[in-house]
Amino acid sequence: MKRAVVSPDSSGEDRLIARHFRPLATHPGALKLIDDVAEMSVPPGHDLVLKTDPIISGVHCFPDDPPGAVAKKALRVNLSDLAAKGAMPLGFLLALALPEGIGDAWLAAFAAGLGEDAEAYGCPLLGGDTDRTPGPLTVAISALGTVPHATMVRRSGARPGDRIVVTGTIGDAALGLGLRRDPLAAARWGLDEAMRAYLLRRYLIPEPRNVIAEALRCYAHGGMDISDGLAGDLAKMSRASQVTGTVEVARVPLSDAARRVLDAEPALMDSILTGGDDYEVLASVPPHSVGSLVAEGLASGVTVTEIGIMAVGEGKARFLGRDGTELSFVRPSFSHF
Amino acid sequence: MKRAVVSPDSSGEDRLIARHFRPLATHPGALKLIDDVAEMSVPPGHDLVLKTDPIISGVHCFPDDPPGAVAKKALRVNLSDLAAKGAMPLGFLLALALPEGIGDAWLAAFAAGLGEDAEAYGCPLLGGDTDRTPGPLTVAISALGTVPHATMVRRSGARPGDRIVVTGTIGDAALGLGLRRDPLAAARWGLDEAMRAYLLRRYLIPEPRNVIAEALRCYAHGGMDISDGLAGDLAKMSRASQVTGTVEVARVPLSDAARRVLDAEPALMDSILTGGDDYEVLASVPPHSVGSLVAEGLASGVTVTEIGIMAVGEGKARFLGRDGTELSFVRPSFSHF
Repeated sequence: MKRAVVSPDSSGEDRLIARHFRPLATHPGALKLIDDVAEMSVPPGHDLVLKTDPIISGVHCFPDDPPGAVAKKALRVNLSDLAAKGAMPLGFLLALALPEGIGDAWLAAFAAGLGEDAEAYGCPLLGGDTDRTPGPLTVAISALGTVPHATMVRRSGARPGDRIVVTGTIGDAALGLGLRRDPLAAARWGLDEAMRAYLLRRYLIPEPRNVIAEALRCYAHGGMDISDGLAGDLAKMSRASQVTGTVEVARVPLSDAARRVLDAEPALMDSILTGGDDYEVLASVPPHSVGSLVAEGLASGVTVTEIGIMAVGEGKARFLGRDGTELSFVRPSFSHF
Repeated sequence: MKRAVVSPDSSGEDRLIARHFRPLATHPGALKLIDDVAEMSVPPGHDLVLKTDPIISGVHCFPDDPPGAVAKKALRVNLSDLAAKGAMPLGFLLALALPEGIGDAWLAAFAAGLGEDAEAYGCPLLGGDTDRTPGPLTVAISALGTVPHATMVRRSGARPGDRIVVTGTIGDAALGLGLRRDPLAAARWGLDEAMRAYLLRRYLIPEPRNVIAEALRCYAHGGMDISDGLAGDLAKMSRASQVTGTVEVARVPLSDAARRVLDAEPALMDSILTGGDDYEVLASVPPHSVGSLVAEGLASGVTVTEIGIMAVGEGKARFLGRDGTELSFVRPSFSHF
């Protein structure tokens, strides 16, 4: 089928790569994107950590999102996994499928956003591929990170007695998505312009917590990032670790904007706990290490909050309301299927 | 946007992965696909080789291709790069975007084909992601391989005096694509059923040359796989190496089926040399090593054919006809842009 879209300009793809993406390929192993592949060494005594998580327009972002924001989200959702595993970013591969109509200006803005984050997070472009697609924009990034051998923070590492902690605040992105879908919600929720902008931004561009990756590696028994909602992701960690995780909902850290929304519509606590796209870290930490992790977070500008406890159990997650009754959720976790 | 496609069955994605893909995740670093990431060690003294090359339905394959064949092609186009670089496969990441209507039977056949090749090529599934897409099926595989430190065969490694060699036969896939598009062509070209089936298969499922990867690493100065057509890919290698590559077209190895087509339509030599999807290896080998590479190829069941020479030059590729005149091509290389 490829020849169906052959361009009379045989080097268009090469020029596109040279113009927009070669400046991002700062790692020597990227071979300036001249080869078909990247060639890397991994520091001796270190393991590789690998993740792929694509962004599809219309599924994970809106078609009219700014291209730089799409690029940042596509990289950051993968960086978030590296952070939660205690890994240092090594670099990333980019497979870009572009619909007709995406032109040079869009690509320039996309590459600019990607380059800013590649530099900010120390995660250079290593290689990639660019295709035309009859479908929506698809940005498939595969991120590579490293950890000292056998120190990766696993989803299955939680132990009974550990405290459950999360970074940042929970639910902002789900509420931001709600605002995006229903512009009238801002008034209904009583949000001022700053709060509205804050929630929208939390959905548009996540803030992966790579600055505390090393602290997590030192102090956490188990960890994962929260992408499908705190409720579902805690259930996944509890299942993988064969423990029962119990969270006191009143302790879940919320932004001022989210509190304002809850004041107006208390039922939205369900969205906050299950909506996903948080890209915060969920970790299971032994009690004597919580203080150290909180302190290291503070020093890095990341709030770490204790919200519950892991106990002997059979892999369930429980969320307790103020009166101690267990909450139930219609849809505990996001799933595509 | 994710919640737009939330399923009331919160663990559908987990079940899909468990049923179809967990059996393929045989590498311990895949963590049985229970974690968010894969965790691998790279053998000491070895470099990583990384490649991502996606398959988009309607662009790189036909919507009615058998799912097992799509899976094999998606993995093999990446394995082909590892082969040409002299790398041993380590494993792969899979980002799968599934349109509505793809169900369990399709996925079972897809996973079966993928599993066969993962085993045959020693390239297990390490991790991945599965999404619904409003667009066409997209299979984005990122392959990892290893080479002993600093021994990767680069596109830029060709030197003046080297001989140009290719594996297998050239142009079969381009002709197979022609047959797929125009079923009447088989009769026009005088193909018998076996030849027709052969060419169709060469397009549908490439045969990456991983069995001679180690020999390439020992004997080749430069190498790449032929995915965008011999003419354009030789031009790329010549440019990257700053040499001029000259091929005698009469020496380019052709299958019996391709010869039959050329007898009927001599002008199709252009498609053979520029059509792409060959997934054969193009290598630049010092004269004293050609015999050894040919012999090691033979021992592994892969024909290696000398077709030309690299000379001092400025990065051009030249194709000479029987009378020594230089051929020119309308579209020397496939490009999406």
